[in-house]
Amino acid sequence: MPGTPPTRFVYLGPAGTFAEQALRTIPAAERGARTPARSVPEALDAVRTGDADSALVPLENSVGGAVAITLDEMVDGAPLVITREVVLPVEFVLTARPGQPLAGVRTVAAHPQASTQCRRWLRDHLPDAAVVDVLSNAAAAAAAADGQQDAAICAPFSIGRHRLDVLADKIADHDDAVTRFVLLSRPGPPPPRTGDDLTSLAVYIAHDRVGALLAVLMELAVRGVNLTRIESRPTGEALGRYAFFLDCTGHVAEDRVGEALQGLRRICAEVRFLGSYPRHRWTASGPDRPVPAPAGLSDVDYADAAAWLSRLRSGELS
Amino acid sequence: MPGTPPTRFVYLGPAGTFAEQALRTIPAAERGARTPARSVPEALDAVRTGDADSALVPLENSVGGAVAITLDEMVDGAPLVITREVVLPVEFVLTARPGQPLAGVRTVAAHPQASTQCRRWLRDHLPDAAVVDVLSNAAAAAAAADGQQDAAICAPFSIGRHRLDVLADKIADHDDAVTRFVLLSRPGPPPPRTGDDLTSLAVYIAHDRVGALLAVLMELAVRGVNLTRIESRPTGEALGRYAFFLDCTGHVAEDRVGEALQGLRRICAEVRFLGSYPRHRWTASGPDRPVPAPAGLSDVDYADAAAWLSRLRSGELS
Repeated sequence: MPGTPPTRFVYLGPAGTFAEQALRTIPAAERGARTPARSVPEALDAVRTGDADSALVPLENSVGGAVAITLDEMVDGAPLVITREVVLPVEFVLTARPGQPLAGVRTVAAHPQASTQCRRWLRDHLPDAAVVDVLSNAAAAAAAADGQQDAAICAPFSIGRHRLDVLADKIADHDDAVTRFVLLSRPGPPPPRTGDDLTSLAVYIAHDRVGALLAVLMELAVRGVNLTRIESRPTGEALGRYAFFLDCTGHVAEDRVGEALQGLRRICAEVRFLGSYPRHRWTASGPDRPVPAPAGLSDVDYADAAAWLSRLRSGELS
Repeated sequence: MPGTPPTRFVYLGPAGTFAEQALRTIPAAERGARTPARSVPEALDAVRTGDADSALVPLENSVGGAVAITLDEMVDGAPLVITREVVLPVEFVLTARPGQPLAGVRTVAAHPQASTQCRRWLRDHLPDAAVVDVLSNAAAAAAAADGQQDAAICAPFSIGRHRLDVLADKIADHDDAVTRFVLLSRPGPPPPRTGDDLTSLAVYIAHDRVGALLAVLMELAVRGVNLTRIESRPTGEALGRYAFFLDCTGHVAEDRVGEALQGLRRICAEVRFLGSYPRHRWTASGPDRPVPAPAGLSDVDYADAAAWLSRLRSGELS
C-alpha cells in the first residue's frame, strides 16, 4: 500500500548490539516489528523478498567490519535504496556483576574489534587481565552476567537485559568514533527534500582511473555538488572495471543534482542510484550545518537559465 | 644493521588463517620467526617498538573486516612504510572428520564472515544445516576436528594441523574474491624499483572536498600517475578535515612520481608517504600487466626537459 509507513524492520543482529540501538532511534521502528538478521546479506534479502519492509545495516566505520559487505551486497542483486541514515557514537563501557571490584578483574569478555578499540584503556587500567574473545557485544555482556568472565566490554545498550554494573564508562581510545547505519528499502519515491540531504551512488568506470575519476568529479564540482565520502571497490567480475561509492550533498529532486546525475549517466559505464535521504546531523565530530546550494546553482537559478536559453532558441535576444 | 633482511615477523593471528598463509609466501618469512598478533594494532605496535621487524596485516577486501583499522593504525602513531604486498585469492572449503558424509552434516562451524561469503553454497547444498559462529577459520577447523560440530568452513590452509577431509572445495559465492595484505616496516630506504611498482599515500585536505580532491587528482593525472585505489576516511580529531588513502602506480624514485608528490605536498594540508613497493601480480581477476610511464613522462624525458629549462635560463635558446 503506497504511503503506508514500513512496519517490519530487520537489522544486523544479534539483539542488544549497536545496530538494534540505531534502529530504535527511528520512531516507526519503535512502533514496528524488529527482527535481527544473522548477516548483512540475510538482512538485505529479507527486504528483497518482501519478508521485511526495511533493513538497518552498518555502512561506514563499523564496529563489526561489515562495511565492505554492505557496499557489495547493496549493488549485488535487485535494487535497494537508502531512505534514512543513523549516525551513532561508538561508546564502550566495562561492566561486571554487582560487587565485582575493578581491581579484582582477571578476565574480560569482548568482541575482538571492541577490545581493539579499548586497547589503551585496558593497558593502563587492567594490564594483567586476560581478554577473552566472544562473538558480539551482546555475548560479552552475557558472559559477564552469568559469571563466565569477571567483566565485559560492551556498548551501554548491550547491558539492558542483564543485571550488570558499569565499572568504567567511555573506555574507547578514540572518544569521537561513530558508526553510520543506513535503512534500506525496496525502490519507491525518495523521502522529501529537507534542504540538508545526501545522495548515494555507485558509479562504474572503465580502465584509466585517474582520467575517468577526474571526469566524474568534474561533473559534480561544476554543479556545486560536494562529496562527503568516496570509496573504490574492486569489481571481481570484469577486468579493468572499477566501482566507486560516492555520497554527495543534495537531493535527486534538486535541479543541480539532477543535472550532475545525467552527466554521470552519459560518461560512466553504469550509475546505480542508491537513494536521496536526510543527512543525520550529529555534533560529536562531524559537520553540523546544512550545505546550501552554492550561489547561482539553486532551482530558481536553473529555472531562470532554462527560460533564458528558450528565449535564445526562439530568437528573443533580450 | 642496515642491509640485513628482517627476520622477526608478526602477523594478524591466530595461526592457521589467511594472514599466516600470506606471510608464508614471502621467502624471508619462511626462514624467519613468525609470531601471531591478537589484533592489527598489536602487530603494528610490535614493529614500532622494535619487538618485530615487519608486520603482515590485511589492507583491502579482507575476510576479517580489518581494513579500516589497518588504515587508521598505519597513520596513527610513529611512521611505518609498506615494503611489500601479497594478494591472495579468498578460498573456502567445507571440511569434516574422515568418514563424515556431506548428506549427514547437521552443524557447520564457521567465522561469521566466512559463512556469509558461502551463503549461496550453503543454501543450495546444506539448506537444513545450522551454522555455528566461531571466532576464526582456525577455530572452525578445530571444532570439526574434535567433533564439536559435524563440519567446518575454513581456508584450505587452516586444515593443515588437523586430520580433516575436504567435503567440498571452492564454496565461496564469488570465486574471484581476493584479500590484499601488506608488509609494514619501520622507515628505511624503499625496495628498489622494478618497473611495476605501487606507491601508497595518505593525503589530508581541508573543507571543500570535491574541489580539493579534484586538485589532488590533477597533480597525479598531469604526470601520468594512475590510481589503483582511493578511499576516504573520516578523521575524528579535526572538524572539516578529510583523509584519503591513495594507491598510485609508480615508484617514489621515478621523476614523475617525485614531481607529483611534491605537487601534493604543496596543495595538501598533510601528505603521509606510506611506501613504494613491487606490485604483486595476480591473474585471477586483477590487472596483470606492468603499467609503463606514459609517453613523454619517463625519467629520460624529465632529464631532457630539465636540461632544456637550464639552457633557457642561461640564455642558450638553441
